[in-house]
Amino acid sequence: MTRNILFSAEPSAWQEYQAPLTAALDTAGVDAHLSCDHAPGTVDYIVFAPNGPVSDFRPFARTKAVLGLWAGVESVVNNPTLTQPLARMVDEGLTQGMVEWVTGHVLRHHLGMDAHILGQDGQWRAAYPPLARARRVGILGLGALGQACGQALRGLGFPVTGWSRGPKQTAGLRCVTGQDGLHDLLSSSDIVVLLLPLTPATTDILNAETIALLPRDAVIINPGRGAMIDDTALLSALDHGHIAHATLDVFRVEPLPKDHPFWAHAKVTVTPHIASTTRADTAAEVIAQNIARVESGLPLLHQVNRDAGY
Amino acid sequence: MTRNILFSAEPSAWQEYQAPLTAALDTAGVDAHLSCDHAPGTVDYIVFAPNGPVSDFRPFARTKAVLGLWAGVESVVNNPTLTQPLARMVDEGLTQGMVEWVTGHVLRHHLGMDAHILGQDGQWRAAYPPLARARRVGILGLGALGQACGQALRGLGFPVTGWSRGPKQTAGLRCVTGQDGLHDLLSSSDIVVLLLPLTPATTDILNAETIALLPRDAVIINPGRGAMIDDTALLSALDHGHIAHATLDVFRVEPLPKDHPFWAHAKVTVTPHIASTTRADTAAEVIAQNIARVESGLPLLHQVNRDAGY
Repeated sequence: MTRNILFSAEPSAWQEYQAPLTAALDTAGVDAHLSCDHAPGTVDYIVFAPNGPVSDFRPFARTKAVLGLWAGVESVVNNPTLTQPLARMVDEGLTQGMVEWVTGHVLRHHLGMDAHILGQDGQWRAAYPPLARARRVGILGLGALGQACGQALRGLGFPVTGWSRGPKQTAGLRCVTGQDGLHDLLSSSDIVVLLLPLTPATTDILNAETIALLPRDAVIINPGRGAMIDDTALLSALDHGHIAHATLDVFRVEPLPKDHPFWAHAKVTVTPHIASTTRADTAAEVIAQNIARVESGLPLLHQVNRDAGY
Repeated sequence: MTRNILFSAEPSAWQEYQAPLTAALDTAGVDAHLSCDHAPGTVDYIVFAPNGPVSDFRPFARTKAVLGLWAGVESVVNNPTLTQPLARMVDEGLTQGMVEWVTGHVLRHHLGMDAHILGQDGQWRAAYPPLARARRVGILGLGALGQACGQALRGLGFPVTGWSRGPKQTAGLRCVTGQDGLHDLLSSSDIVVLLLPLTPATTDILNAETIALLPRDAVIINPGRGAMIDDTALLSALDHGHIAHATLDVFRVEPLPKDHPFWAHAKVTVTPHIASTTRADTAAEVIAQNIARVESGLPLLHQVNRDAGY
């Protein structure tokens, strides 16, 4: 039986996804009618991004699942009209891109690359960095992204501590949890990477008090969500010399306004939310396979827990 | 029986090595008298760097082995007075440091970091790089360093081709050899890393002709030896826009003279021979264990083949 699949995202995403999603549904054996225009009452599945036209899910009475195109779900999870199961995007390409960006920027700071990239002044300064084994990395968040980044950094020799809200075990990482664990991680991390989901509990998790726990000259890397950092507290810690550098890919307002002090600050690197991007080819396969699972009576993968918020 | 071990390197190396080498010899069970001042005829082993006082090995009549502190041996291997077996340094710390530096700079170029580090102008440019799987890396040289770097890059998803003079197999890498293999590697590498030993055959291996084989906008990374690149040909290829960037850690003359055009070139990053440094703690263990092997009648490890030159 043909399933009606509504694609609800911005028009440029439709350009990008139409062909790979059609192909992936075919490969997964789903007899699908994919369109941006199905009448709500006829829709079996919604492929969804928060910047698309759907915001009221009540008319979608027979919809079996909403399949998100984004990894972050904070802008939809509290929508009271959404009663259908919601899956967030867990895409191999998204994880791989994040691993590359995080590993690259951790190595950049570890090796002190900026001094060479910015300082080609003819002076031969033969100081060399310690080995990775002497550079402690802390990762806040041990979901799919945090675990994958932790494993990659561990593979390069960095000692990695990971923090999660509830207890978790990840091979090769030192895993900590709770307020004591957060205190432990921050006070023993030369480089800290933020990969938590954004929830009320993680908003401003790096604030004046927690930033002060980090060792002097620590580096903060945020490819997660901008609102996890209190911007004013971070700027103050940079100005006072407690924090050596912040590399930030995400912000409370995006694009980051041209007059935001992060742009002009010598100790801040802004990157334009590129650390991890859903890639159409791999994401289309994830969505098609998840629909095929539901059609076979299997549970939806990557389903969002609304109480937890992710 | 006490063995006389002569330490022949620059004075700063003695400061660095005296304590770890004494400890490592003790741990290895070698009854040693370590000094910078033994009479040549009484010396059993020489711990050697080319920038130390020994250049005539003839008076060292009873010396059983010369244990190099450096990975590169081109400045001693053709010394006609050296008839004793010579071991080059193969140090875990040296390999690890090289892996970190090479992986970091490959990721830097792959991710296009410089645009963000140098261009914080308030413009949000949301272009993102392809995944590592679409960035072809070529490594010239499949010795201990080349293999270790290739494996690390493979682990991050880069497709890696490695070239060696004679045929070699390295798990996960595409291995090529000979002139055809060199042509193949250069014409299919977006980023090329030089990790060959310096020999007459590898001097100027990157010249006008071979650089022209690289794809347009390729990046060259040289942590091996400066003389493997024809500097004039490289500058010309950068100026003509064929090569996007060169990151160079080694040079024909070191320190690189202040007036060398590499320093001022916007498409060249100079780093001061820091990619891989012998680290006293781990190197001392390698030397002590090699001496203990010879004392037990086992063959010297990492012995240089003088015909090959490495």
